[in-house]
Amino acid sequence: MRKIEHIGIAVKSLETSNVLFEKLFGAPAYKQEEVASEGVKTSFFMNGPNKIELLEATNPESPIAKFIDKKGEGIHHIAFDVEDIYSEMERLKGEGFILLNEVPKKGADNKLVCFLHPKGTNGVLIELCQEIQK
Amino acid sequence: MRKIEHIGIAVKSLETSNVLFEKLFGAPAYKQEEVASEGVKTSFFMNGPNKIELLEATNPESPIAKFIDKKGEGIHHIAFDVEDIYSEMERLKGEGFILLNEVPKKGADNKLVCFLHPKGTNGVLIELCQEIQK
Repeated sequence: MRKIEHIGIAVKSLETSNVLFEKLFGAPAYKQEEVASEGVKTSFFMNGPNKIELLEATNPESPIAKFIDKKGEGIHHIAFDVEDIYSEMERLKGEGFILLNEVPKKGADNKLVCFLHPKGTNGVLIELCQEIQK
Repeated sequence: MRKIEHIGIAVKSLETSNVLFEKLFGAPAYKQEEVASEGVKTSFFMNGPNKIELLEATNPESPIAKFIDKKGEGIHHIAFDVEDIYSEMERLKGEGFILLNEVPKKGADNKLVCFLHPKGTNGVLIELCQEIQK
């Protein structure tokens, strides 16, 4: 794990929260993207070597809709940048962490991603992500 | 704001969670520190340009004890590194954010810190922190 790639924040309205985070960072989102498979619309803000990802649910079955129903708006996950997601998944599995997907899947922002079960990580949903080489 | 300085994670037991995060990062905490004024013991893990701070309450009145009572273990705050905390506090106040302390206070890891009210930031507790020059 090389750095915090991004922090994912669950929001009710991207439109409203984009304005808020633009004020916070003094610069607008550099990207908006829909990930249909996860039922989310996202926007990304750059902060030096790190990013903030805002996530709005696009349907009531989306994990983000369920998260907000249960806990309200707030931090949803931390994503760490990894060089080789396959070897890192193998290593963490060996350490006893539970992977939520056994094979990396395509996430937002041109990434291969894998989530760790928060039950094994102090209630923190952790994402591993590796940039897909073009 | 120049980067994510650290993410603060509320835990029940530093002893237990230190083992967990050492496995996650493949390296132990580089520092442990008690902040008596906040009622917490902390440990810090390095991850490239970023850090993870684990926080355990040292008394039942600690904000971390109250957080865990209400929400369980998990991500407590995001801290952003700022060059000049006074001007950043002034700027954010002007943008309508609510500061939880009007004057920077001494935090863990040799920092001046200020928190923003989560009601104004999508439920996310945000900390500004500036390294204290020695």
